[in-house]
Amino acid sequence: MSKENVHERLSAGAIQKVPEPTLRRLPWYLSNIKLRKLRGEQFVSSTQIAKEIDIDASQIAKDLSYVNITGRTRVGYDIDALIAVLENFLGFTSIHRAFLFGVGSLGGALLHDSGLRVFGLEVVAAFDVNPSLVGTTVNNIPIYHTDEFEQRMKEYDVCIGVLTVPIGIAQPVTDKMIAGGIRAVWNFTPFRIRVPRNIVVQNTSLYAHLALMFNRLNFNTDHP
Amino acid sequence: MSKENVHERLSAGAIQKVPEPTLRRLPWYLSNIKLRKLRGEQFVSSTQIAKEIDIDASQIAKDLSYVNITGRTRVGYDIDALIAVLENFLGFTSIHRAFLFGVGSLGGALLHDSGLRVFGLEVVAAFDVNPSLVGTTVNNIPIYHTDEFEQRMKEYDVCIGVLTVPIGIAQPVTDKMIAGGIRAVWNFTPFRIRVPRNIVVQNTSLYAHLALMFNRLNFNTDHP
Repeated sequence: MSKENVHERLSAGAIQKVPEPTLRRLPWYLSNIKLRKLRGEQFVSSTQIAKEIDIDASQIAKDLSYVNITGRTRVGYDIDALIAVLENFLGFTSIHRAFLFGVGSLGGALLHDSGLRVFGLEVVAAFDVNPSLVGTTVNNIPIYHTDEFEQRMKEYDVCIGVLTVPIGIAQPVTDKMIAGGIRAVWNFTPFRIRVPRNIVVQNTSLYAHLALMFNRLNFNTDHP
Repeated sequence: MSKENVHERLSAGAIQKVPEPTLRRLPWYLSNIKLRKLRGEQFVSSTQIAKEIDIDASQIAKDLSYVNITGRTRVGYDIDALIAVLENFLGFTSIHRAFLFGVGSLGGALLHDSGLRVFGLEVVAAFDVNPSLVGTTVNNIPIYHTDEFEQRMKEYDVCIGVLTVPIGIAQPVTDKMIAGGIRAVWNFTPFRIRVPRNIVVQNTSLYAHLALMFNRLNFNTDHP
């Protein structure tokens, strides 16, 4: 499809690229209504959600308009239906298979996090060059030598690469992943990787988040 | 100190609250210059950093102006000095002690990540109510019963709480942490916690990041 066609379909509203701030807020709504389900509630309105999570009700209604669900007047959204629709919309109900690159401290930790699978990400194999790791498993996930990546791509149906290598090799490993057919990189390194335009990058730098928190904490401490 | 005084000192430039976007970019510069050090380089200019990480050179120079370092004309910044100054500025060189709440899948995974210590965060103890966990250790970190939190606060010098509990108890555990003296919450749950104004919250929802990545990936797939 040409760029122009995509544009036409976008402006016609047939397909919408959801704004990133909306995508960031939807999981908050999901967790709020999951909590309501735990409390035994059956229906919820955007006004009720707004009261509990400190976001404007009109913003919530607007965000939820991207999702294919309609609330009933005076009753609100059916909680079970909204959970199902949101989980599906956010991609948590289909399994996305991933390879993890770099079984160091953080990479190894992520292999232990079975919770990712609940949210749609299944790490099916990991790669490293460390001879003491290659051939072993962590949390039942096999660790292969990095040289086997291209061969393993043919075996597994994988489109996501989790990047947890040292910064010195973050870019070459990314290049290798993409050459092998990876289409989205979940980058946990503090390194700003460069990729072709059609490749998705999601940066999650725990260390950048730490820096933010330390700075705010020091500022609050200096000026109580 | 009164609010007015803080304002005065701020506008006088004596103390600056660094803008969040700057704080988010500084770790990228740090990782770029660390890579340069690995390559044996000794000096770097903002123009050279800009070429490698796809951020405007003037933006980089402006961001670095918050940090107490001066580059030399035609030579640039001394790489060793810039690394030291940035690591200190970002808080990575002083150890911030933390408690972790909720040793489930993600919490347990984070306890395995010794890399956090390199960036200034040391998880000294964890809390859970699961009898099969209480009294054990993960990665040499002791796990106590949640009821022991207030007593342990007196033993350890801790100001940060890492929140990795199920969403159903995210808010009450946060309230308990703050009542016990925790001043910053690193919130890994997708739950939007509410805290008093003087408490720092850093949200790191891996699941929200997954949702973003899945959405972008599907969009790229549908419209190649």
